[in-house]
Amino acid sequence: MFENKERTEIEKLGEFGLINHLTQHFKLEQSSSTKGIGDDAAVLDFGKQKTLVSTDMLLEGIHFDLAYIPFKHLGYKAIQVNLSDIYAMNGIASQVTVSIGLSSRFPLEAIEELYEGIQIACKKYGVDLVGGDTSSSKQGLIISVTSIGSADEKAICYRDGAEEGDLICVSGDLGAAYIGLQLLEREKQIFLENPNIQPDLEGKDYIVERQLKPEARKDIIEYLRSIKLKPTAMIDISDGLASEIKHICKASQKGCHIYEEKIPIDPMTYDTAREFGIDPTTCALNGGEDYELLFTIKQADYDKIKNSPDISVIGHITDLASGCQLISKSGNMHEIKAQGWNAFKA
Amino acid sequence: MFENKERTEIEKLGEFGLINHLTQHFKLEQSSSTKGIGDDAAVLDFGKQKTLVSTDMLLEGIHFDLAYIPFKHLGYKAIQVNLSDIYAMNGIASQVTVSIGLSSRFPLEAIEELYEGIQIACKKYGVDLVGGDTSSSKQGLIISVTSIGSADEKAICYRDGAEEGDLICVSGDLGAAYIGLQLLEREKQIFLENPNIQPDLEGKDYIVERQLKPEARKDIIEYLRSIKLKPTAMIDISDGLASEIKHICKASQKGCHIYEEKIPIDPMTYDTAREFGIDPTTCALNGGEDYELLFTIKQADYDKIKNSPDISVIGHITDLASGCQLISKSGNMHEIKAQGWNAFKA
Repeated sequence: MFENKERTEIEKLGEFGLINHLTQHFKLEQSSSTKGIGDDAAVLDFGKQKTLVSTDMLLEGIHFDLAYIPFKHLGYKAIQVNLSDIYAMNGIASQVTVSIGLSSRFPLEAIEELYEGIQIACKKYGVDLVGGDTSSSKQGLIISVTSIGSADEKAICYRDGAEEGDLICVSGDLGAAYIGLQLLEREKQIFLENPNIQPDLEGKDYIVERQLKPEARKDIIEYLRSIKLKPTAMIDISDGLASEIKHICKASQKGCHIYEEKIPIDPMTYDTAREFGIDPTTCALNGGEDYELLFTIKQADYDKIKNSPDISVIGHITDLASGCQLISKSGNMHEIKAQGWNAFKA
Repeated sequence: MFENKERTEIEKLGEFGLINHLTQHFKLEQSSSTKGIGDDAAVLDFGKQKTLVSTDMLLEGIHFDLAYIPFKHLGYKAIQVNLSDIYAMNGIASQVTVSIGLSSRFPLEAIEELYEGIQIACKKYGVDLVGGDTSSSKQGLIISVTSIGSADEKAICYRDGAEEGDLICVSGDLGAAYIGLQLLEREKQIFLENPNIQPDLEGKDYIVERQLKPEARKDIIEYLRSIKLKPTAMIDISDGLASEIKHICKASQKGCHIYEEKIPIDPMTYDTAREFGIDPTTCALNGGEDYELLFTIKQADYDKIKNSPDISVIGHITDLASGCQLISKSGNMHEIKAQGWNAFKA
C-alpha cells in the first residue's frame, strides 16, 4: 500500500509536527468544547448534565486487517465503534480523543487518510476531536479512542434496568458485519494464492460496508427521544446479540426469551451465510460488530415503536430462574450461550 | 519474567472475565463518579465545573522496556504520566480509563501486578478507575490511559497566558529521570553480555526511582491553591525543559531567558551525568520524563513562592522577538532548541 504513490516519511515532521499536521483542519463545533487540542488537557463544559466517557482500542492483526480495510474506512470505523457506546447510554456524544501508534512502514499519506476518515465521522456525528497523541510503534498500527458525551440524569439508560415482561428490541439488522468479514477473508485468501484474480465482491456491497464502515445508531437515540420513549435498559451490539442480551440479563438479574424468527437478518446476509454453510442465526447471535442497539421497553410503550421499520421486537424479559432462552423456528428452546469474540483465543 | 512462578494463561478468563478479575478491587471513591466500569460508558457529574480530559499511550519498546521496569511500577507510571497533564491545567484529576493490549507471552500474574500499580496510583492520587478494555495484542504490551478531572473556569491555566516580565518557575529538580534511564540501559547491556554480573544501582536509588516511579505534582497544585497563586501559564515537563518552555512561549507569543545556573539539578543527577560524560544541563533541557511542572507567575507573586524549597525561579518571559535564550553559567546566550524526544527517529 502506498508503494507506488507519493510517500512522505513521518519522521520528517516529528511528533508535534505530525499531530498539528493531521489535526489542523479539525475545528471545534460543539458548544461544550471549551478547549481542544494544544494544551495538556481538553476543557469541556457540560453545565448541569452528566458527562459520559467511553474508551476502546483497535489493534492491527486483532481488530482489523489492513489487507482489506482502507485507512479512511478504518479511521471512520474507529470513531463509530466508540460513539456507539455513548449512544448505548442514551446520551449524545460530543467529543473524542484519538491516540495512534504508528510503525515506520506507514507513510504520512496513509495516516492522512486515516485522519480523513476520522474527520468525516466527526463531522457526520457532530463530535469534536479534542485531544490525543501519536507515537511510533515497533509493531503494527494501534488506534485508541476515547469518546465523551452527555445526557440528562433521568435519560441515562443503564444495562440493569430491564424488568420482567419488558419487550426486547433491536435496531436495524444483525449478522451482516460478520458475514461481510468472512467474505473479505475468503477474497483475501484467493488473492494471496493468485494475485491475478480480482476480488469478487459484486452485489455484496451491503454486507461488506457493514463490516468496513459501520454506522453508530445516533439516529435511533434521536428517534427514541422524539417519540418520548426511554428504554428500561440498553447496550450496543459489538460482540453479538447473545453476548449482549446476557449482559443486560446479568446486570438486571433477569432471564429472557428471544424468538429466532423475530431476529432481523438482511436477505443478503442470509443468502451469503448459506453460501458459506453458516447458520444465519448464528451470525446474528455471535457475529458481532453490527453496532446496532439492543434495548428493552415497557409493554405499554409497544405502540410507540410498532410501526418503526428500523426497530424489531425479538422477545421479552423473564425471571432470572428461567435463564436466557432462544425459541427456535421449530419451537424448541435452547439456552443462549455467549461465545462473543474471545480475542484471547486468537 | 514469571517463568519460574505461578503462571495462569489469560485466555482462561476471556476478555470480560479478565477485566472483571483485574478491576474487582477498584472501588469508586470520587463524588463525581456516578457510574464506573460495567456499562457502555462511565457517567461523571461535574456540576458547574469544567471537565478536563487528557490521554496518553505507552508502547513497549518505545516508551518502556520490560527488561528493567517491573509491571507494578509500569502501571503506577502509566497513571502518573496522565494525571500530570490534568495537574498542568491547574485542575484536580478524579477519574481514569485504562485500555490494555496484551500478548500471550504475559501470564495473568504479570497483568495483575500491572493493575496493582494502577490501583496504588489511583488510591494515592485520589482517582477512580471508571472504564477501559483489554485486548490481545500480536506484539507487545500497549497501555492507553485517559484521565479526567475538573477545575473552576477561572482556575484553569493554559499555555498561552505568559506575559513579558513573568517569572518562569519549575517544581522539583530536572534531568534525573533521563540519567536514571541511561543507568538502567547500561546495566541492562552489562547483564546481556554477562548474566552473572548483578546490576550495580547501589546509591542510585533516587535517579532510578525518578525514571521507574515518577510522581505527578498534585502537591504543587494543592500548594499553589493554598497560597492563592494562579500561574499565568503552565505545562508539565514530559519532553524536557527546552521543549516545554518553547511550547509556552509559542502559545503565548513571547520569548524567554532561562539561566543555566538556576536550573534545579539534584547532586546525584549531576554526578551521574558527569560519569556518563553528559552535560547535566543537557539532561535537564532535553531529558524528559521528569513530570515536574513548569509555570509562569507575575513578578508581584514572587514573595508567595520565594521560600518554597520545591519551586525554583529559573528565568523570565521576554518579548517574542528576543526568542528563547539560555544564559550559560559563563554569561553567554544560546538559543534554546527543543530536541525533545522525537520518537519517530527511534
